[in-house]
Amino acid sequence: MNANKKTMIVFSGDLDKATASFIIANGAAAMGNEVAMFFTFWGLNILRRPEKVKTKKGFLEALFGWMMPRGAGRLGLSKMNFGGLGALMMRTIMKRKRVATVQELMASARALGVKMIACTMSMDVMGIREEELIDGLEFAGVAAYLGEADDANVNLFI
Amino acid sequence: MNANKKTMIVFSGDLDKATASFIIANGAAAMGNEVAMFFTFWGLNILRRPEKVKTKKGFLEALFGWMMPRGAGRLGLSKMNFGGLGALMMRTIMKRKRVATVQELMASARALGVKMIACTMSMDVMGIREEELIDGLEFAGVAAYLGEADDANVNLFI
Amino acid sequence: MNANKKTMIVFSGDLDKATASFIIANGAAAMGNEVAMFFTFWGLNILRRPEKVKTKKGFLEALFGWMMPRGAGRLGLSKMNFGGLGALMMRTIMKRKRVATVQELMASARALGVKMIACTMSMDVMGIREEELIDGLEFAGVAAYLGEADDANVNLFI
Repeated sequence: MNANKKTMIVFSGDLDKATASFIIANGAAAMGNEVAMFFTFWGLNILRRPEKVKTKKGFLEALFGWMMPRGAGRLGLSKMNFGGLGALMMRTIMKRKRVATVQELMASARALGVKMIACTMSMDVMGIREEELIDGLEFAGVAAYLGEADDANVNLFI
Repeated sequence: MNANKKTMIVFSGDLDKATASFIIANGAAAMGNEVAMFFTFWGLNILRRPEKVKTKKGFLEALFGWMMPRGAGRLGLSKMNFGGLGALMMRTIMKRKRVATVQELMASARALGVKMIACTMSMDVMGIREEELIDGLEFAGVAAYLGEADDANVNLFI
Repeated sequence: MNANKKTMIVFSGDLDKATASFIIANGAAAMGNEVAMFFTFWGLNILRRPEKVKTKKGFLEALFGWMMPRGAGRLGLSKMNFGGLGALMMRTIMKRKRVATVQELMASARALGVKMIACTMSMDVMGIREEELIDGLEFAGVAAYLGEADDANVNLFI
């Protein structure tokens, strides 16, 4: 076990939980940790490109894709979202307080060497293609996650 | 500490989170890990028998029991459930993609020796009786969980 | 690493998850563990004083403060809350079964030496002032959390 390694499964795609994940990731990386984040299910939405990407999808896949937020800039809150109003309030407050946005936290995580891994099985289920996700990701499944977690001393499910 | 042991507290009773839990459990068990899953609060719903079981309950207990899903086949999504429509969509997609259902994942977990433990305190609070739950479970409380977690190198709360 | 130390990030401010957190914390502390709980985002609501505290806040901060529950006695359920009715049902059932309330669990956690830490960054974002929170807390950020987690053998995100 490596006392300088942390992993997170980012299952949630909510603005508040995504923010928490990246604050932990950046803090850990800044303190000299190796950090691996596994994005699965709703968490994949954090990794989507903001622009529409042309892909060939079945009807249900397309519907899912259409209903889910495209990227970190469009996530809702896990509580009190009120159709996006809560998330807007939170974004406004965070901007005023000069707290970094999720997008900024993600850029910083990347600069600090945080490994961001998209769960291929969830991508398949949700009909999300590689070209719909941002650059610089790795693609892997549960075995890869377990390999990383085995080697870390803090493992969170968010 | 045992690098070949994993525990999960399955607090959530959502289809998506239950699926994630069992995919991790099966993956870990297949890789030679001992795995213990503690089902508590809403997570107990995953363990309910699909058929109605006659029990003597107080009014509030009966009401809770009636409102909560009976078993893995009736779970909803944690997001975008839309009164069950989202869960139906997800089930349809998973079937088409030949992804195992939660019930199949549970059967496989059992075959791989994953220990499934129902939290007795939550059962008491939610008015769920042993005879309402599927076979092959263990019944224990927080002390048992902590004993298992102390011995494991990955511990998740889902 | 210290096999007798546990940490929890309490991100959620729901009655059910708060109850679970404190049951784990009390169990672990009673078994001789050092326990550190980090309250962040909605989890801060668990720590709010039940009475209204006069503070100077901007409009959005005041609105957030007004919309969020003031303390452990007013938390809702993460599922089936139905505008507080579900939480009321749960509280009624727990009282009848003589299960400790969150407030009682918190008092017991304190008596057992559980460290309760409020996340200063979340406090800033949500506009929550120290004087609005209960006594006996510590105030710290992500670096403090990581320091504690590095030293523990069970780390949960709730």
